[in-house]
Amino acid sequence: MKIKVAQFGLGPIGIETLKLAATKPWIEIVGGVDIDPAKIGKSLTEVTGIKGLEKRKIYSSFDALCKNVKPHLVLHTAVSRMKTVVPQLEPIVKAGVSVVSSCEELLFPQLKNPALAKKFDALCRKHGARVLGTGVNPGFVMDTLAICLTGVCRSVEKIEVERVVNASLRREPLQRKIGSGLPPDEFRKLFKEEKMGHVGLVESIALIAHVLGWKIGAINETCEPMIAPKKIKTAFLEVPKGLCCGIHHRAEASDSQKILTLDLKMYLDAKDPRDAVKITGDPAINAILHGGVHGDRATVAALVNAVPVVLKAPAGLLLMTDIPVPRVG
Amino acid sequence: MKIKVAQFGLGPIGIETLKLAATKPWIEIVGGVDIDPAKIGKSLTEVTGIKGLEKRKIYSSFDALCKNVKPHLVLHTAVSRMKTVVPQLEPIVKAGVSVVSSCEELLFPQLKNPALAKKFDALCRKHGARVLGTGVNPGFVMDTLAICLTGVCRSVEKIEVERVVNASLRREPLQRKIGSGLPPDEFRKLFKEEKMGHVGLVESIALIAHVLGWKIGAINETCEPMIAPKKIKTAFLEVPKGLCCGIHHRAEASDSQKILTLDLKMYLDAKDPRDAVKITGDPAINAILHGGVHGDRATVAALVNAVPVVLKAPAGLLLMTDIPVPRVG
Repeated sequence: MKIKVAQFGLGPIGIETLKLAATKPWIEIVGGVDIDPAKIGKSLTEVTGIKGLEKRKIYSSFDALCKNVKPHLVLHTAVSRMKTVVPQLEPIVKAGVSVVSSCEELLFPQLKNPALAKKFDALCRKHGARVLGTGVNPGFVMDTLAICLTGVCRSVEKIEVERVVNASLRREPLQRKIGSGLPPDEFRKLFKEEKMGHVGLVESIALIAHVLGWKIGAINETCEPMIAPKKIKTAFLEVPKGLCCGIHHRAEASDSQKILTLDLKMYLDAKDPRDAVKITGDPAINAILHGGVHGDRATVAALVNAVPVVLKAPAGLLLMTDIPVPRVG
Repeated sequence: MKIKVAQFGLGPIGIETLKLAATKPWIEIVGGVDIDPAKIGKSLTEVTGIKGLEKRKIYSSFDALCKNVKPHLVLHTAVSRMKTVVPQLEPIVKAGVSVVSSCEELLFPQLKNPALAKKFDALCRKHGARVLGTGVNPGFVMDTLAICLTGVCRSVEKIEVERVVNASLRREPLQRKIGSGLPPDEFRKLFKEEKMGHVGLVESIALIAHVLGWKIGAINETCEPMIAPKKIKTAFLEVPKGLCCGIHHRAEASDSQKILTLDLKMYLDAKDPRDAVKITGDPAINAILHGGVHGDRATVAALVNAVPVVLKAPAGLLLMTDIPVPRVG
């Protein structure tokens, strides 16, 4: 029996998610949900270009979708914050339908919203629904992978995770999101207003600490602009020398002598892109994913691959470390 | 409440396992089992040197141990094959006690002994016991890690896992086990008799194929000696030029266009020791654990770290991919 899946959010990532889902023989796509009036009522084929979905419509809400067809699981790619995701997911969970979401704060919901997370977890259990937040970052390269590598360690003193992304090879919205072309002071002002930086970095570090049982104090978070050393030109934009060409976002935490650091650089013309996990421990681990893991393509994969694993898990608000090891579906 | 653990098998790996277990505040060591008359009746402190276990004895069988104290879980480091491990584990499972074992064939028991694996799984379920075979290899670097990395792939065409171990840095039994000093023909004869080579390589490849849903045909397995290019001297032995100084063990399998290869070299004076996973897919992944993961130290870690995870899993004969991602305990 195929897994009936609906897509919530039909922006660029939602469309890519659906395109990948359509290639999996174990998935049946049954519909979509979006708030854009230009999309509501159209078929998924019209909006995404995927063939064979001419009769599968886009609805204005999950409840409207459910009047026509009830999915087993909803792929959700719409928002980044717990306070906005919970109202969107409540009707889905109340229908007993499970969710895999790209919402960054859902990776470790109890960090910023412990009361809300607890209440939402209880709702999931009550209605037999599973909800997981995942992706490539947060969700894999800066958290789950590091945790997995500690599995062969007798003891761990320090974990240093480093991700370097060459934003020149990424889509236009990402190139703009990292502040390309901004004056450095404007960048810093936007970070203070939570309008700049990578959402999910503190959730990644908190997840690692939680799973390893480390009692960390405050997470020290900094986000500085990367500055163009000379004029940079991409397929989409141009940055003059001296202006911002990306972010350098760091999170650090410690439990007495034990130290966690996550260091993320996403900038134009980045050299030696990579995902690295360095574990100081017994034995030490020095893991490098040379070239790094491509964010956009991999996030969509992480979402779709999680579908069958999540459906077999017990009901509740799940963490990546509650479910079996990731695998391609 | 602490987890009550007993150690089955008090050879070098068993003693190392127990020493690590003794450092974990969430474990209480309650006793040991061994067939060696020189050890039976002695305290664990006498045999292992671990302080504080003066009143914890070594028994001749699990049933004898159980008359004194019933553990929650048994750490088992005694044999490599399904046909010898099952009779050893049956009394444990029948008492409803769970097991984490270094038995290589237990990593994927259905490969060589499908009927026995099915029967033993039913026995585990009947008595509410969990049994897991794990370690660093098999158990992590050539299987679980590769599977985990596919979790961010949209599709995978080929997985190439390579492990290079510098046996000069390992304990004496391992240096001898890889055939150091043997004439090449004698090495090949021993491999044919299943007395040479790495037990578990075919289980690793079969586990990967199983989890990814690849329908592989026969596994093509080769094991050739590495030949000393000049005289090699280690802390324990000397190998003249032209004789064996280690193994080159390969396993290959395919599902039409999809290809899996596992390549293991363990030899004296090996250059650039590493664990590498190369995935040809979308996106491609090129992961290298530079320096590799130290086999002896890490295997013991994998066993002890699995204890709390296994106890939370449903009853049955478990695979590494049935349980949550590994993590240091």
